[in-house]
Amino acid sequence: MAIRPYNEFSLIDRLTSRLNLPRKFVAQGPGDDCAVVRIGRLVRTWRAMSLLTTDLLIENIHFRRDWMTPEEIGFKAMRVNLSDIAAMGGIPRFALISLGLPPKARGAYAEKIFQGLRKAAEETGAAIVGGDTNASSKLVVNVALVGEAGPRVLLRSGARPGDVLYVTGTLGGSALGLEALKRGRRVGFERMIACHKKPPLRLDVGRALAKMKGVTALMDLSDGLAGDLPHLLKASGVGAAIDTRLLPLPRGFQRLAARFRLNPGHLAVSGGEDYELLFTASPRVKIPSKISGIPVSKLGKITPNAGRISDAGGILGSGGIKGFRHF
Amino acid sequence: MAIRPYNEFSLIDRLTSRLNLPRKFVAQGPGDDCAVVRIGRLVRTWRAMSLLTTDLLIENIHFRRDWMTPEEIGFKAMRVNLSDIAAMGGIPRFALISLGLPPKARGAYAEKIFQGLRKAAEETGAAIVGGDTNASSKLVVNVALVGEAGPRVLLRSGARPGDVLYVTGTLGGSALGLEALKRGRRVGFERMIACHKKPPLRLDVGRALAKMKGVTALMDLSDGLAGDLPHLLKASGVGAAIDTRLLPLPRGFQRLAARFRLNPGHLAVSGGEDYELLFTASPRVKIPSKISGIPVSKLGKITPNAGRISDAGGILGSGGIKGFRHF
Repeated sequence: MAIRPYNEFSLIDRLTSRLNLPRKFVAQGPGDDCAVVRIGRLVRTWRAMSLLTTDLLIENIHFRRDWMTPEEIGFKAMRVNLSDIAAMGGIPRFALISLGLPPKARGAYAEKIFQGLRKAAEETGAAIVGGDTNASSKLVVNVALVGEAGPRVLLRSGARPGDVLYVTGTLGGSALGLEALKRGRRVGFERMIACHKKPPLRLDVGRALAKMKGVTALMDLSDGLAGDLPHLLKASGVGAAIDTRLLPLPRGFQRLAARFRLNPGHLAVSGGEDYELLFTASPRVKIPSKISGIPVSKLGKITPNAGRISDAGGILGSGGIKGFRHF
Repeated sequence: MAIRPYNEFSLIDRLTSRLNLPRKFVAQGPGDDCAVVRIGRLVRTWRAMSLLTTDLLIENIHFRRDWMTPEEIGFKAMRVNLSDIAAMGGIPRFALISLGLPPKARGAYAEKIFQGLRKAAEETGAAIVGGDTNASSKLVVNVALVGEAGPRVLLRSGARPGDVLYVTGTLGGSALGLEALKRGRRVGFERMIACHKKPPLRLDVGRALAKMKGVTALMDLSDGLAGDLPHLLKASGVGAAIDTRLLPLPRGFQRLAARFRLNPGHLAVSGGEDYELLFTASPRVKIPSKISGIPVSKLGKITPNAGRISDAGGILGSGGIKGFRHF
């Protein structure tokens, strides 16, 4: 299993770090789950702030056409974009779709991709309002989304020392599902494969968090806790003391991971594509054990040690996987 | 020279033709240069309508890395998107960039693409606010743009019988420049190659047209008059009587086309990538010979014969290139 380093080459961050953004119109530029902008001249309140996000998915890099149906590819492509709106506490509104289609993926196949995209959008109330299709050697699916900000926007940069760190749902199912697909072992792994193909979408949780006092930072987990927690810490200029023994794992996860001789903790922190929400809240706030019906687990707390992760579970931080302190 | 049929397989149009769009928020869905939407809840006037558009460019389909520098690739990718905002009479505001990068196009090469994208955006006042980068076998550049609608939005669907048809600038230069690049013949073709690599952007003309009374329909020319005029006619439910002998050609165009034994008229109507504006106006309105410094040429008039193009110049319509009447 490849452990993705948290400081993975993030070109767009580097490229965009020197942009001179018009502060009057851009509340948050690159570096969060979405950009936060003011569109139009009548718009003065947070409620009228807009969220912009885009994700590019490419065949054999992000998905395999022999592992997923075209509906599943489309559905997931839209979901992972919608998840970026959830990660700001917002409401998705409008989607633009770009499809690069190899010769054998045109016609009925492309129509099925589109049906998947549309299903995932429409079940949230978002509308596909335009797009572009082109010839391509590999299947390319790009989604760009416009959302409406909630009562307030939850950025990655709001975590403060003493805050408590939480995660929704369970982690690791998607990574184990992907392992099962790679090894051609489907029997017994159906629920894990479903996590991979049809990731959760936490829009209701995100909106609820945006309404709760004391919630300080929010992001979604696309690259695993090992990849994403450092982004939140860096944006906030803080560290974290966590316990990966508290990681919420899917039922049967340890037993199934053992079938592949995989370390369940490593898989759960580094596999990625969980699309659960990671958030921080003031210790003075009582966070319920479920939000909008989704379980919420405590993982640890925020510390003043900028960039440092310590893990009582020994997986992340100085005692565990290397590379998680280097920013 | 391949003559692109106007009724080129437009999958996204077909896919999106059955969408149920929320009319309260979507004034124009797929099928025009941009979608026209209302974002946020305070927004009630045309001025606060937003424009959304996206374009996907793929290596060896839309550009060749051996013919264009990375700055030129980025610059053009942004320009062709900005042109869709011009084609609505709007103002570009925010851009999202997705880059799919082959191993040899990472690092400095990608940075140069981004510099080109940024230059083209910033010279219009638009800001790049986010993006996504990923591995890819071929270079992929997707741009999604959010614009602000002008005093009114000029759609493709507003042309009425009796209206006069106009085009800005000159046509055919980009197509001839591409031919020169394909044949490795650069000397003498520098201006044509420049048309291909650095297409014009008619934002000022688009905004001026949106302010003029009597202008009825507007679009940009990306697929050539032969490819695009039928879209305007179809959207408006009208026909056109034009004279392709009136086509505004770049200086020296006929002589240069003759070097390749190409028919200049065919090249100018079907080559594409001109990114000039095509528009219609009531015959009662005087359209100046230049708008914002750009020459405007009359091409003919709109007729009630839905879907029919007649051409006194014999290139388009029933006497000329086949395939331009079939909708």
